[in-house]
Amino acid sequence: MAAFAPKSQVRVAVLGATGSVGQRFVGLLEHHPWFQLVRVGASPRSAGRPYGKAVRWMQAGPCPSAAASLVVQDCEPARGVDLVFSALGSSVAGPIERAWAAAGALVVSNASTHRMHPEVPLCVPEVNADHLAQADRQSFGSGAIVCGPNCSTAGLVLALAPLQLAFGIRQATVVTLQAVSGAGVPGVPSMQVIDNLLPYIAGEEDKLESEPHKILGRLSGTGIQELAFPMSATATRVPVIDGHTEVVSLSLVGDPTPDAVAAAMASFQGPEGIAALPSAPARPVVVLAEPDGPQPRLHRGMENGMATVVGRVRDCPVLGTKFVLLSHNTLRGAAGGALLIGEALIARRG
Amino acid sequence: MAAFAPKSQVRVAVLGATGSVGQRFVGLLEHHPWFQLVRVGASPRSAGRPYGKAVRWMQAGPCPSAAASLVVQDCEPARGVDLVFSALGSSVAGPIERAWAAAGALVVSNASTHRMHPEVPLCVPEVNADHLAQADRQSFGSGAIVCGPNCSTAGLVLALAPLQLAFGIRQATVVTLQAVSGAGVPGVPSMQVIDNLLPYIAGEEDKLESEPHKILGRLSGTGIQELAFPMSATATRVPVIDGHTEVVSLSLVGDPTPDAVAAAMASFQGPEGIAALPSAPARPVVVLAEPDGPQPRLHRGMENGMATVVGRVRDCPVLGTKFVLLSHNTLRGAAGGALLIGEALIARRG
Amino acid sequence: MAAFAPKSQVRVAVLGATGSVGQRFVGLLEHHPWFQLVRVGASPRSAGRPYGKAVRWMQAGPCPSAAASLVVQDCEPARGVDLVFSALGSSVAGPIERAWAAAGALVVSNASTHRMHPEVPLCVPEVNADHLAQADRQSFGSGAIVCGPNCSTAGLVLALAPLQLAFGIRQATVVTLQAVSGAGVPGVPSMQVIDNLLPYIAGEEDKLESEPHKILGRLSGTGIQELAFPMSATATRVPVIDGHTEVVSLSLVGDPTPDAVAAAMASFQGPEGIAALPSAPARPVVVLAEPDGPQPRLHRGMENGMATVVGRVRDCPVLGTKFVLLSHNTLRGAAGGALLIGEALIARRG
Amino acid sequence: MAAFAPKSQVRVAVLGATGSVGQRFVGLLEHHPWFQLVRVGASPRSAGRPYGKAVRWMQAGPCPSAAASLVVQDCEPARGVDLVFSALGSSVAGPIERAWAAAGALVVSNASTHRMHPEVPLCVPEVNADHLAQADRQSFGSGAIVCGPNCSTAGLVLALAPLQLAFGIRQATVVTLQAVSGAGVPGVPSMQVIDNLLPYIAGEEDKLESEPHKILGRLSGTGIQELAFPMSATATRVPVIDGHTEVVSLSLVGDPTPDAVAAAMASFQGPEGIAALPSAPARPVVVLAEPDGPQPRLHRGMENGMATVVGRVRDCPVLGTKFVLLSHNTLRGAAGGALLIGEALIARRG
Repeated sequence: MAAFAPKSQVRVAVLGATGSVGQRFVGLLEHHPWFQLVRVGASPRSAGRPYGKAVRWMQAGPCPSAAASLVVQDCEPARGVDLVFSALGSSVAGPIERAWAAAGALVVSNASTHRMHPEVPLCVPEVNADHLAQADRQSFGSGAIVCGPNCSTAGLVLALAPLQLAFGIRQATVVTLQAVSGAGVPGVPSMQVIDNLLPYIAGEEDKLESEPHKILGRLSGTGIQELAFPMSATATRVPVIDGHTEVVSLSLVGDPTPDAVAAAMASFQGPEGIAALPSAPARPVVVLAEPDGPQPRLHRGMENGMATVVGRVRDCPVLGTKFVLLSHNTLRGAAGGALLIGEALIARRG
Repeated sequence: MAAFAPKSQVRVAVLGATGSVGQRFVGLLEHHPWFQLVRVGASPRSAGRPYGKAVRWMQAGPCPSAAASLVVQDCEPARGVDLVFSALGSSVAGPIERAWAAAGALVVSNASTHRMHPEVPLCVPEVNADHLAQADRQSFGSGAIVCGPNCSTAGLVLALAPLQLAFGIRQATVVTLQAVSGAGVPGVPSMQVIDNLLPYIAGEEDKLESEPHKILGRLSGTGIQELAFPMSATATRVPVIDGHTEVVSLSLVGDPTPDAVAAAMASFQGPEGIAALPSAPARPVVVLAEPDGPQPRLHRGMENGMATVVGRVRDCPVLGTKFVLLSHNTLRGAAGGALLIGEALIARRG
Repeated sequence: MAAFAPKSQVRVAVLGATGSVGQRFVGLLEHHPWFQLVRVGASPRSAGRPYGKAVRWMQAGPCPSAAASLVVQDCEPARGVDLVFSALGSSVAGPIERAWAAAGALVVSNASTHRMHPEVPLCVPEVNADHLAQADRQSFGSGAIVCGPNCSTAGLVLALAPLQLAFGIRQATVVTLQAVSGAGVPGVPSMQVIDNLLPYIAGEEDKLESEPHKILGRLSGTGIQELAFPMSATATRVPVIDGHTEVVSLSLVGDPTPDAVAAAMASFQGPEGIAALPSAPARPVVVLAEPDGPQPRLHRGMENGMATVVGRVRDCPVLGTKFVLLSHNTLRGAAGGALLIGEALIARRG
Repeated sequence: MAAFAPKSQVRVAVLGATGSVGQRFVGLLEHHPWFQLVRVGASPRSAGRPYGKAVRWMQAGPCPSAAASLVVQDCEPARGVDLVFSALGSSVAGPIERAWAAAGALVVSNASTHRMHPEVPLCVPEVNADHLAQADRQSFGSGAIVCGPNCSTAGLVLALAPLQLAFGIRQATVVTLQAVSGAGVPGVPSMQVIDNLLPYIAGEEDKLESEPHKILGRLSGTGIQELAFPMSATATRVPVIDGHTEVVSLSLVGDPTPDAVAAAMASFQGPEGIAALPSAPARPVVVLAEPDGPQPRLHRGMENGMATVVGRVRDCPVLGTKFVLLSHNTLRGAAGGALLIGEALIARRG
């Protein structure tokens, strides 16, 4: 089957384009085969200036020249935009995203505002692309809003999904060692991560303990039925630029061996159609053989930062199974994950 | 009751004195009220030179001048030494420590070699000072060998002991975020901890999953009866100089509230006599009120680095109780903990 | 000669007491033999609450309990204060400091506002305590304002002063590798100092190129005659908590040997009376013998953080002499240096 | 003019292939248009095993599969190799490199052993490709040895060359802030670069003070006439993975303005033929406009890590001109620079 491609370029806007996730969107869109960046929205402070001047570019490569010459707009809805990637903060995202949806745009949001809204799919395409059907019957207007999960949830759910499919999850604990890029700039003060770490990230544990239940849930006529299992999270911040490491212990139905657990993750593929999307990883979960991986700097770039990289799968004397995973928080956990949702939405509409 | 003090200075040797734990011993002994450093032992490469010249001093303060002028000896037993602190590596500690014990010395070891030996107390004095009675009936000779636990075990056991006393432990999991000083110098290469962390420390998890059972065990006529409970550990290395952070979840008998758990830890005191020793902390466990502690750089120095500092005591949706602890790995977890054992041994002999 | 001591406790206020330099002041004043902290001033947001509640304490030890119970005030002048330590930012320090001086207080300022004011001594007591005579004839009112230098200047001038005395400075270059604590909290974002450094610190080079000229100048009837010599600075920020490292090259009159240069620095003592002050280091400049020092973590604490620690004194093929120095930026370079000025002022008034 | 390409694939060996620079060679050769990796040499400990098993791969991407299946050989000369890239340590490189040259191979060495040998070109192709003519008349045998400079010299010389061409250098000082990758693994212990830096790198300053003189020298009938100018270096190590930052001050003939200096660097192109080579950067020197660059993490990847990135060009009150440069130490400063030399050698032979 030939891979799907849209008949014409999809016109894309990025909201919150000058922030760190916004910059990731702009970078990833540079050579995108389907999407054309036509609008960059930011705060009134930046509006009216060329993006290349308004942004304090913090990515490793240079700012794409086409984007650099776009004049920054405010974040209000506008004509001529098919798809909106919102990198807005949760404090302002709500009304703006709903206004774009009312105006007919497909909005893919990185903010937490609508994640647990009963009409809004919370989507990791390899896991629950079928939830996108909810986007057809929202009450926001002729467009729709779809959310990507919190950065620490995204990588976790990719590892949990194949285990739920193959065995069934009884309960799970996760301890995260999260990178600083998740907090943006200025974000975490340097005084707090030199010879130090932070054992607490405000709001993060609640998200880790609730979002997986929705993503792994089942879409029925009346909405998402969450997958209910006890889930315990502790979130910490460590001196790493990119890449969240997560230590997972879980109890699985049937008490499978570590080899069976590793095999279930390594062979995982999402639903047909998703794997062919431009941003989809060939392997959603990569299982390492080496004893001391995954490591953020060495492995976060696997599959263009879209894979969950797993290592150290072994027996847990308490819950049964344990392993360590790594997920690139600003790619899979933010802009890259949202792009994949956008592709899935476009492919779905045909 | 007046605090105990020995009738005369206790003559002390430090073995492995030029390494990083050895240096900590030398530093802590500088102003010790009971102990006088009379001998520093190291490898033949260093022997014969003044300690101040032989050592590559890496502590924050200067090398104590009295120690600096001692001529470094080899590590063979010698006369005129009452108490030996061994900072030798596990690969060489065995025969040397046994030789000193055979020659009549009390040996307090930081090495793993004898930790699980059935005749050897594995001691955290506030927790199991009564195990020191084993030192009277060892088969090593007229002296004795007593071990301190692994650095990551030491802090953990101080938090577990009051919970075992007050409630009883059913099962426990721990994820450690360990400082690099535990690996000494050269130790962990800098390439591995800049923008990176290591999700694996060779041998560490085995120690964390076995040593607490012995320390929390009960001394009977036939030896130590271990406290058997399922224990699961994952050990990681993070870019912190000193201070192991540990994320603990556990199931306690009676399912106490977080407040009850915190109160049990905060009110913990070791057996009578231990708290009065020169190196004993006033509070073996300090429970913080702030939401974002403990943090290595801010809290590792509490109680002179001898306390386990606990924060974030709360319900765990899976096991019942969870919290975060911090312990200074080269003080409580190595030299400081060993000093306290030495003091307990001397006080016991009277 | 018996050391001077004031007849009664000196009543001290700290302005900007909740910031990082303010906290250093509060910490250093805890056991000060002459000074009693009677007032802590901060922004209106903090005023009215106990200091222990208002402050987000970031020092390694606990907040002193006497200070913790003081109610935070605003920064306006008040009665019952003899000496004011100002840790205010430069944007607000001007009118507040002048108001305190007008009200009769001796103000020692850490801000840059008045440093180059022709009536204000810019003081490093070992170097130019005689400049304090200017404080008697200022036009600010019955009190006075005295400034400490920028944190990077303080350590540099201590090394330059003995070389000017012994030989004479023809020209000098300095490249700084500065710690992040100088920027306070939030200060430098962690994204900028993990696997990175910043080759620029706004305003820093101007201070390094001008303040030494005033400090090393000569007080005459008409004011300070600056010591004019070409001075070139480049300031960088590196991932170090405390301790500014500075690489210095200079041309000295007479082209002395490295040994002579080292000897001049190592034997330096300030004017009589200064060395006896409570905060004065026994050795204002410590010259290390080891080939790879000074290093921030190992040496910044020498002489309680009040010494400039020098290493690697050697020939410079271009300018004649080069060396590396280290200075504790929040002790000698801020709160500690200001305390020493305060002591010198009190001792001078007798 | 069409770009040169060799008539057949050039057969390439990498010596020291398992070390960190060796790994960089293997990675860069994966998709090289001219070069085919046919042999990987390492210590006897690794020989006989597939490279993919023998190497502890530390690069961000995966080990190239073609290389992974090569069986590791020892480092002795062998048939069927045209070009040898030596990543051997200086302690062993000498006899091995000479043996390969005697056997007819072109050897490009990253070791310091032969750098100052009078018959050996020390080459940065954009600067002194004409020196490669020396390779035709060496006494090592039918092959030849050519050296790349020390990692800190490589980036510096690219910035100095256009200034020598345009103005003439009278004298120069450089202070380096070097990344840890230059020291390999284990290399710099993590204890030395967390909350710390090292103000000394053994042997580095001598190289910085001598190699530029040879590279900028002139080839005459009797060998290289060095460009003699006073040069002073201080080398420090900072907690950065890749990218040496260097603070340069210099005196230039004619005292040009900062704008003229920046323009001379920005417009620099090497000799004809070099710019067309596969590894040559489009811009050997990139001059940044932003006030706070270059920064290692943001700018080391410019021009695939082959450019010297310059910022902050301004007047120096002492020497006349100063600026900051950044160079990727394991690309331009090691494997990438050597590849470019290899390409220049092959292109020269035609």
